[in-house]
Amino acid sequence: MIKAGIIGATGYAGGELVRILMNHPQVEIAWYGSKSYIDKKYYQVYQNMFQIVEDICKDDNIVELADQVDVIFTATPQGFLAGILTEEILSKVKIVDLSADYRIKDVAVYEKWYGIEHKSPQFIEEAVYGLCEINRGKITDKTRLVANPGCYTTCSILTAYPLVKEGLIDVNTLIVDAKSGTSGAGRGAKMQNLYCEVNENMKAYGVASHRHTPEIEEQLTYAGDCQVTLNFTPHLVPMNRGILATEYATLKRKEDGSLPTYEEVKAVYDKYYAQEKFVRVLDKGVCPETKWVEGSNYVDVNFVIDERTGRIIMMGAIDNLVKGAAGQAVQNMNLLFGFEESMGLNLVPCFP
Amino acid sequence: MIKAGIIGATGYAGGELVRILMNHPQVEIAWYGSKSYIDKKYYQVYQNMFQIVEDICKDDNIVELADQVDVIFTATPQGFLAGILTEEILSKVKIVDLSADYRIKDVAVYEKWYGIEHKSPQFIEEAVYGLCEINRGKITDKTRLVANPGCYTTCSILTAYPLVKEGLIDVNTLIVDAKSGTSGAGRGAKMQNLYCEVNENMKAYGVASHRHTPEIEEQLTYAGDCQVTLNFTPHLVPMNRGILATEYATLKRKEDGSLPTYEEVKAVYDKYYAQEKFVRVLDKGVCPETKWVEGSNYVDVNFVIDERTGRIIMMGAIDNLVKGAAGQAVQNMNLLFGFEESMGLNLVPCFP
Amino acid sequence: MIKAGIIGATGYAGGELVRILMNHPQVEIAWYGSKSYIDKKYYQVYQNMFQIVEDICKDDNIVELADQVDVIFTATPQGFLAGILTEEILSKVKIVDLSADYRIKDVAVYEKWYGIEHKSPQFIEEAVYGLCEINRGKITDKTRLVANPGCYTTCSILTAYPLVKEGLIDVNTLIVDAKSGTSGAGRGAKMQNLYCEVNENMKAYGVASHRHTPEIEEQLTYAGDCQVTLNFTPHLVPMNRGILATEYATLKRKEDGSLPTYEEVKAVYDKYYAQEKFVRVLDKGVCPETKWVEGSNYVDVNFVIDERTGRIIMMGAIDNLVKGAAGQAVQNMNLLFGFEESMGLNLVPCFP
Amino acid sequence: MIKAGIIGATGYAGGELVRILMNHPQVEIAWYGSKSYIDKKYYQVYQNMFQIVEDICKDDNIVELADQVDVIFTATPQGFLAGILTEEILSKVKIVDLSADYRIKDVAVYEKWYGIEHKSPQFIEEAVYGLCEINRGKITDKTRLVANPGCYTTCSILTAYPLVKEGLIDVNTLIVDAKSGTSGAGRGAKMQNLYCEVNENMKAYGVASHRHTPEIEEQLTYAGDCQVTLNFTPHLVPMNRGILATEYATLKRKEDGSLPTYEEVKAVYDKYYAQEKFVRVLDKGVCPETKWVEGSNYVDVNFVIDERTGRIIMMGAIDNLVKGAAGQAVQNMNLLFGFEESMGLNLVPCFP
Repeated sequence: MIKAGIIGATGYAGGELVRILMNHPQVEIAWYGSKSYIDKKYYQVYQNMFQIVEDICKDDNIVELADQVDVIFTATPQGFLAGILTEEILSKVKIVDLSADYRIKDVAVYEKWYGIEHKSPQFIEEAVYGLCEINRGKITDKTRLVANPGCYTTCSILTAYPLVKEGLIDVNTLIVDAKSGTSGAGRGAKMQNLYCEVNENMKAYGVASHRHTPEIEEQLTYAGDCQVTLNFTPHLVPMNRGILATEYATLKRKEDGSLPTYEEVKAVYDKYYAQEKFVRVLDKGVCPETKWVEGSNYVDVNFVIDERTGRIIMMGAIDNLVKGAAGQAVQNMNLLFGFEESMGLNLVPCFP
Repeated sequence: MIKAGIIGATGYAGGELVRILMNHPQVEIAWYGSKSYIDKKYYQVYQNMFQIVEDICKDDNIVELADQVDVIFTATPQGFLAGILTEEILSKVKIVDLSADYRIKDVAVYEKWYGIEHKSPQFIEEAVYGLCEINRGKITDKTRLVANPGCYTTCSILTAYPLVKEGLIDVNTLIVDAKSGTSGAGRGAKMQNLYCEVNENMKAYGVASHRHTPEIEEQLTYAGDCQVTLNFTPHLVPMNRGILATEYATLKRKEDGSLPTYEEVKAVYDKYYAQEKFVRVLDKGVCPETKWVEGSNYVDVNFVIDERTGRIIMMGAIDNLVKGAAGQAVQNMNLLFGFEESMGLNLVPCFP
Repeated sequence: MIKAGIIGATGYAGGELVRILMNHPQVEIAWYGSKSYIDKKYYQVYQNMFQIVEDICKDDNIVELADQVDVIFTATPQGFLAGILTEEILSKVKIVDLSADYRIKDVAVYEKWYGIEHKSPQFIEEAVYGLCEINRGKITDKTRLVANPGCYTTCSILTAYPLVKEGLIDVNTLIVDAKSGTSGAGRGAKMQNLYCEVNENMKAYGVASHRHTPEIEEQLTYAGDCQVTLNFTPHLVPMNRGILATEYATLKRKEDGSLPTYEEVKAVYDKYYAQEKFVRVLDKGVCPETKWVEGSNYVDVNFVIDERTGRIIMMGAIDNLVKGAAGQAVQNMNLLFGFEESMGLNLVPCFP
Repeated sequence: MIKAGIIGATGYAGGELVRILMNHPQVEIAWYGSKSYIDKKYYQVYQNMFQIVEDICKDDNIVELADQVDVIFTATPQGFLAGILTEEILSKVKIVDLSADYRIKDVAVYEKWYGIEHKSPQFIEEAVYGLCEINRGKITDKTRLVANPGCYTTCSILTAYPLVKEGLIDVNTLIVDAKSGTSGAGRGAKMQNLYCEVNENMKAYGVASHRHTPEIEEQLTYAGDCQVTLNFTPHLVPMNRGILATEYATLKRKEDGSLPTYEEVKAVYDKYYAQEKFVRVLDKGVCPETKWVEGSNYVDVNFVIDERTGRIIMMGAIDNLVKGAAGQAVQNMNLLFGFEESMGLNLVPCFP
């Protein structure tokens, strides 16, 4: 049994961490950090937790917290952890950071896209990018700092990864058109996220400028071993949870000029995912739907080859708060402590 | 480890039974019955179950099924179970019936409100009305047939039960105004349940004629030990899950003409519910919200006393597919087999 | 052609006024007042108005505005108009106030329920309560100040009015259970109105304390000529627009002890509403649905008599932003200036 | 004043035609055709029309209808009009066909994508593709048959048209990722369109096989004067109305290797749309949102140039039932009869 602390426990991702850890047999939450609700009972912020969590929200004193727990989850705004992290803290406790602070290896890229100075670049090199299906081997009991991937990025990367890795597509043609439920926008009181503004509405945002773009590019660059520059367009959808990524790329033709067949592409997906518990390659012809993974840690992927245009259309769906945030963070924690990777994550998707 | 069969496994309540039983440590589902999808893989009907359930849908041959399992859940249309149930079947297997066939003791009342003939009234007497918080003592390893309560009825009854039982309200003034998500209407392809008909819309239906009325009346009559006749008005709400019941009744005044105080009423609720895991009496001033119980077996209740009118407004919220159907069915099953009552039901509500 | 000014043009009700007045043949909007967006183009606040409205938002200087227009609509917070209204202003311009400042004749009642001091009680007497179907005769070219009714109140009053007026129900048994879309909560950035908090959720609020209660009571007291005290419970529903009121009352029995018949009650509704363009008494057995009036100025009403309990269940539906706010304000304006009452209000409900 | 008949008046597009024509000063609806509801009052099918439309639904006898009206709108399934159209009918009445029967000039392409035989190919040549902004000149009082464009196609074509026409993009790189509200799926009772299946869910469908693909390709081929083959992926979104198209294409570089500037691209959009009432090119940086055009005939478009990838991201939004169906049909009718093109279409978008 280990003890966990959460900084940012009252945001949506923090709340989801609490929900998942409640049923984790090896973890006890010892610290519900929330700058906005200090001294308030946690269940008064999330009434679903009434009679389940009796704790009181505490401040975000990470130094004190580091002495009390085995692992800290930081579900905090960009720049927060980078601004306070020290070698002393890392020497005492493992950290799974749900923010973007340590996801991007090139600090200049981080600072350009996020528009803030990185206050502790010395830890970037050590941080492991916690996309478990790809980097599992690097997340061990020796690892001190895991950069938990973003929601859009988790979905976007895993949907295309096998084809990039195996060189089946021309990576420079890759376009990611992603759609997200509104919980990704957080619990802050902003006019544009009011019910009446989002409901019965759909829009793109952050076009050609969304901060998840360089994160996707970096990871696919590693996968393909060649520079990937792509278009990523997020959209806001009137639903609470779920991300759907629709991705387009030109298939490389075989020597005889023909396209790879369905079976050939399927074999590549299966090579990487057949043994993965949380990635489901759907049956032929079945398109992923966000509702089928809601509340669970699954990633559902599939693809269609268009003989007319020579492109492949890849599709992936996740629950942005689970595989896109809290679920993956727990998956990383399991790896860090040597627990079974899926421990506490046997969440059956909830339908309808 | 026991074996369970589900007849009607591909309706919404059946699907929820599967979701819940997947994580029940003492149950294995041995039969996915579905008249409409015989020989189809279950996950092809509910793709959320891909790689989780590999079974094939079978017919609804209850005689054959009775030989293979320890308990049968019937999530079937009204009249189905009554039409096929026999002493032989009941001698072999326990049944938790999610339909209304054995909920109402007076067969004439059943036949009047449901408009169908009851084909096996001989089992009505034996059936136990499975509202666990009230009838727990009657549901034992000797019980063969449990009539699982309706969704509206579970919520409506539990919200008012302590006050009726203790005689705090004038039961003839009781009015139940209930609001339900659309999953209560089932998965049948009906025009009025299309997305575009339900979304951005709200209506009452079954006014003064809904079939859950006599069920609520019967149970509250037992509780209050006096005939209860009430108004029950269901409404359709544009959401998937959740029932909210708002109930009105005139409080009986004390001898000095004053109304009971908040503390006095609260004490009555606590008398019945303080020890109940699944009934949560919220803090003063907090109104139940359906989202706070979504995906869980909880019933959230609270009340406000209106000094101006002398009435009490009681409110209750459940997830109609869990406490209102599948969750309560599993709770009953746990009682039937001597498992811990909450086994498999430690479902933390999912928010947002 | 008259000129209109709107103070509070960038709230939801203000925006709806703009939408409706755009197609009014006798009105030109000369002033888009918005404290929050001064000097910003109106269409930048409501992009639906791009290339339709080119004006710039102005401040809320009502003294200056009174010199420039024939009518002012105030879609402002409670207390605003009462704080600035003067005889001089009223001598120059007619005002339709969409706030509650002049709706309630008893200033003590206003101050108690609204919790603020009324700064200009001297105008309360003169103000006409602008529920056109009831007070049409009092709204003339001599009227200077119209108190436009609240959204819940319009729906609640009109649903029960004929039966109260004709003495068919025991008014002390009247209970109003109302459900509203979220636009009624306004465009302010509040956490509880975020998409993820409202969507897939339902709750009661303001139980036994909502400020529309005394307004409903006052108007029904006038109608019934006897003191009405009632329960009013509002609920928040995950939809943008629409209010549904479900109302319960005990029917007075006839001398022979029987209840009034459907035909007798229908005749009473028809007596008051058969000639009303905007009130539609639906066919027998058809329950009002909010979607059927969306975007229009209609009120749909109907009723069911419950022989078992002796109660009548009345139902009414409106679009809270139209008949519940901007549409009724325009209807009042038409009366004030002698235009045809329905001018600019031939809005056909939008479905789906 | 002309008389209009509608065949298929009880589908969603038919219902929208009725809503719009109610406020058209030059049209009277003389025939509400509905195979499914013959002899039923129209308002019983769409209760929003209660006390607005008193007519009874009639059959779809187009021969009889042709004698009674000046124009027929066919809002019918694919193949219906092609199966019954004759020279005699066309000699008596003008037809605006909302189905796909006469949209595609190459009958083989039609038959391949729609999977049905075309029964009257002799009228294809004569039919005018009624995308008014592009083909306005061809729709005159001499025109007998207008093929009203599809919803996805209207949005997809108009979003990219100026750039294709002026040769700014490499048309072979064009990808259209489109998202639609559920009313596009029609009012038929299908399980996959139930509220609980669509709500809180998102999916792609018809990937690389949707029938609007060849229609988009054909029109853009005319515009660009070179063969266009593209990817079109539709998605189902949990909202009633609205289509958003996000389109990607590689910009042709100028001789100096640089990309066109924002101003240069904007000038091209303005060249075609500055004078168009119903196409709004939004201000720089403002992304189209479906809610801003809801209930109106507008198309909102905008674009972002991505210097990193050399692509342009174009975005367009319409109300699928208005500009995507009934509104455009009325716009075509106005052209056919020499009415002002926007007559009856001054519909202000409804927000929220």
